[in-house]
Order: sequence, then structure tokens, then C-alpha cells
Amino acid sequence: MGEFALIDLIRDRCAIAREDVRVGIGDDAAVLAVPPNHQLVVSMDTLVAGVHFPIGTAPADIGWKSLAVNLSDLAAMGATPAWATLALTLPDADVRWVERFCDGFAALASEFKLALVGGDTTRGPLSITVTIHGFVAEGAALLRSGARVGDFVFVTGTLGDAAAGLRRVGDVPDDDALVRRLSRPTPRVAQGLELRGRARSCIDVSDGLMADLDHICAASGVAAEIDVDSLPASSELLSAFARDERRALQLAGGDDYELCFTAPESVALLLLNDLARSGCAATRIGRIVAGAGIRVIDADGMVVNVAASGWDHFRA
Amino acid sequence: MGEFALIDLIRDRCAIAREDVRVGIGDDAAVLAVPPNHQLVVSMDTLVAGVHFPIGTAPADIGWKSLAVNLSDLAAMGATPAWATLALTLPDADVRWVERFCDGFAALASEFKLALVGGDTTRGPLSITVTIHGFVAEGAALLRSGARVGDFVFVTGTLGDAAAGLRRVGDVPDDDALVRRLSRPTPRVAQGLELRGRARSCIDVSDGLMADLDHICAASGVAAEIDVDSLPASSELLSAFARDERRALQLAGGDDYELCFTAPESVALLLLNDLARSGCAATRIGRIVAGAGIRVIDADGMVVNVAASGWDHFRA
Repeated sequence: MGEFALIDLIRDRCAIAREDVRVGIGDDAAVLAVPPNHQLVVSMDTLVAGVHFPIGTAPADIGWKSLAVNLSDLAAMGATPAWATLALTLPDADVRWVERFCDGFAALASEFKLALVGGDTTRGPLSITVTIHGFVAEGAALLRSGARVGDFVFVTGTLGDAAAGLRRVGDVPDDDALVRRLSRPTPRVAQGLELRGRARSCIDVSDGLMADLDHICAASGVAAEIDVDSLPASSELLSAFARDERRALQLAGGDDYELCFTAPESVALLLLNDLARSGCAATRIGRIVAGAGIRVIDADGMVVNVAASGWDHFRA
Repeated sequence: MGEFALIDLIRDRCAIAREDVRVGIGDDAAVLAVPPNHQLVVSMDTLVAGVHFPIGTAPADIGWKSLAVNLSDLAAMGATPAWATLALTLPDADVRWVERFCDGFAALASEFKLALVGGDTTRGPLSITVTIHGFVAEGAALLRSGARVGDFVFVTGTLGDAAAGLRRVGDVPDDDALVRRLSRPTPRVAQGLELRGRARSCIDVSDGLMADLDHICAASGVAAEIDVDSLPASSELLSAFARDERRALQLAGGDDYELCFTAPESVALLLLNDLARSGCAATRIGRIVAGAGIRVIDADGMVVNVAASGWDHFRA
């Protein structure tokens, strides 16, 4: 199968009709209409075989995840997803593999009516790069830099599941709940939309809570105090890991793709109600204080020492 | 050096200030302002080490070319370049390599005041994916599908140089004129802008003239007749290759990144004048006729048989 046949296959499997796609796959570039009085929001993430997913991961899971991690970035900005481009680098033109990859990609794309509008297929070591495009009303994007002293800190869903899944993958069935959190993360798009105009800062938890909340603190010039016993945990995590290990997974485990955000107390109650109604509850886990960095305490107010670090591809 | 330090390095080396970049590198996504009454134009291309450039290619050349091939796609649409995102996958965090890569990337970006607004750095086999963004006034994009019977066919610059350079690379100095055409292609952005509202169809010559003009013919439902003796050749190509080999390079050689376009006779004279004044002359090489496919004739009107094919990464 040649490159152009592969492109046709991908286009056919990932077809979503959108009126704002004026020219889609098949010309030198896509031509797209951003709604009036809206800004474009763009993010790009790469998954490399053997680095971001184990060799032998189901191609449908890779397709899903390559889009999910990008949708999560839009969610963290409070943006409405619209279009994606896909750069797919493959060791060979394995049609069955590409079909399954597209099935996973399209399953998630169709949830958000996201159109695949372009990309590139090349030969090389397996790697997937997606660039995602969405929009926000002018000035409405959620940033990392808006946290203020006194804000409450919240997180959607539960933490630590994906990192726990990574430890079990291969030893348990693929439909294990923790492994599914790793292989099929749910981008919190609807929740990001609820946060617009209400949260003061937001980030998605991709590198681990400590690392990502620290980005909010650094960008906002503030510190955070987190109650480790308030961190939301799934029943699967609770039953499979003892306290200290669970805490480490919740504080430093990456790949959960929950949203961590701050908001003033005045909006907290109604916001939590609306998030729960949107299908994914959020939990208050701490507060923003003056200073720098993150202090972790337990339910008794004792400081917990954590050697927590986020995922860094080039850490020595 | 960690991932975040690498990102800082890339941001610092590739910094271009643009008022329409509301949020650049450093948040979950970039926030960008498309001008009113304009459409967004998006393209994405990947370069893989050992496939799209030889292992050991100068990193500055890789940086230049990774952007040039994307700018060329915008040029073919008649779009004004604005922003890019960069996914850089590296075997290790070689700071000196990244600095040089950025030097090449930034040299070309600054020519077009193009801002790097986001991306991803990951560990893995060397590969570069760029997504480029530009804009056109509503409905003004140049498409492949507009060619009509009777149009003249034109090409900017000269053909076959990059393919000739690929044969010589390693055997001649890096500043050999043909090798430079391969390693530092010039995207025809200014020429693409001249074509708006005047050319009826356009494509960039990345896979080879025959393959790319055939895309225009297929998208437009027409055929083309090309005079092989009218194809523009550089003095370097003329002096280094005999007729038949030269013809093959001009017809089927990829990577030239010239623009191939069609326009009605009525606009041809003024258009050619304006293109020459823009710094890159164009040459009439044939005409659009009824039918399908491409017929190649010589100056005597004799049909030339060419076993020309474009670059296909997955050709069996």
C-alpha cells in the first residue's frame, strides 16, 4: 500500500463533517474558519513507541491516547475542540495496524465532533504527533498564571490510577480498571468548559500533581498547600496499594489527565455542583498561599516529605 | 539538561514577537488571534533521520528544512505565514545539537516573522514534525482543484536541482550549489502571495513535477501537456548532467519546493512580470488540456516516454 492509499484510508476512517472545514485532507494545507470574536487555541504532543507506551500496545489504544493527551491540553485552556492534524511515522505500511489505530482515534474524535484535517505519513520508527486546534471566546482562555493567594485548589476525578496501571500492565487483563486509565485516558473537555470564567488558573495533570501544580505556582508567583489525605482516590487504587505507595502515586504519578485548577471560595460551591453534574466531580485538595513551591500536609496538619518529581524525558 | 531547560533554550533561540500571539510557549496551549475576515491555513510535515535527510546532516540544515517544507505548503495556498509548533524527538538531550538546529530554524522563521508558539520535546529516534499556521482572506486560498482547460502551466525557479544535489551530497563540499538546494530549500512564500486571485490552481513541487502536477490534474479533472525542453534548469544542472538524465531529474526529482501553478493566458504576462520582480521568475512549461494524466513532449512536438514517479514512502 502506497502513501496516498494510506492517507485515503486514514481520511475515510476518521471522517467527521464540519461546516468550518473549508478545505480538509487532500490539498497542500487545510483551510479552516475560526468563529468571529474567538481565539485559536493550539497544542501539540508526541507519543514515541517504547517511551510513551510499551511496544506492543494495542494500536486502537495508541490512536485513542494520541488524541486524548492533546484534547486534555485544550480542556486545560477551557477550549472547545475543533480540528486536528496527525503525523504518523510507521516502520512499514501495515494496513491492519493503521485501521485499528484509526478506530481508536476516531472513537474519541467523534465524541467531540473533532475533524482530522491534515497531517503526514512517513516511514520510520513508530511515533505519533498530533496538533490540536480549538477555540475560546476572546480573552476567555484558562491560564496557569491566574492563581491568587486564598484560592482553593481542586482536582477533577481521581489521581494516581494511570501510574498504578503502568505498574500492572502486562500482569493483569487489558480491561483492568487501572490499566484502562493508562491506555484510554478521558480528557476533561466538558469540565474545562465549565471552568471558564470561574476558575482562576488551570493545568492538566500529565506529569504528576506535584509537577503540574508547581507550574501553576511558578506562573502565578504563589505557593500551594496540599492535604495529601484529601487527594481523590479510586476504589481500585485504594484496594491495591497501601497508604504510602498510594500517596506517592497520587502526588507524582503522571498520565492521569485530570484538571488541576484554582478558584476563589466564593464560586466553589456552585462550581463543584456543576462539575459533578457534567459527569466528573472535582475535589478540593488544598489552597494557594504566599511563597513558592508546594507544601504537603496530612489530615493532622503534619508536613509530609515527598520526593516527588514529574516525568522529565531528559532528566539525567 | 532536563526537558524544561530544553524548551527554554528552544524558546529563547526561536523568539519572534508577534502581537497576535496572546499566549505563547509555556502554558498548556498557545492562544492566537486570526485576523477578522481571514481563514486559518494549516499544514504539517515530518522529517525522519535517515529517510528525509542523511544521518549526520548538519543540525542547522535540518532546522531550516523542517520549517522550509512547511512554509512551502503555505506558499502553495497563497497564505501568509504566522505561527508554528515544533515536535522535536531526540535520542538524547544534546544541547549543542539543539542550539544549531534552532539557529537554522530561526534563520528562516525570522525572514517571515513567524513565531514558534508551542510544541513538544521527547526522547526517541531523531525526528522533527512542524505544524505551520498562516492565513488568507476568506475564500482566497489557492487550491489544486481550480485548473481549467486552456490554462497555461508554470513553475517558479528551476527544477531538478535538489534531486541532483542528493546524488552528489557527500562527494562535494556542503556549499555546492545543487547540494544547497537540497539542504536549504527556499520556500516561495512571496510568489504564492503574488498568485492569489490570479492563478487558478497551485501546488508545491515536493514529490516531483510529474507527481505534483498530476495532483492538480486529478483534483481539477483535467490533463496537462508539458514541453520537457521548456523546463527551467539551473546552470549547475545544465553543466553537470546530460540531456536524458537532466530531464529525469527535472520531471521526477523531488524536494525542489518550487510552485507549479496554472493561470489563464489573459493574466500570464503581468503575472510573470510581477513574479520576476518578486525575486523568483516563473517559466511557462505547458498547458492544461482535456482528459486525464500528463503528456510530455519535446520541443519538436515528439512524445517523450518517461517512467517518472514521485516519492512515495511506502511504495512496495
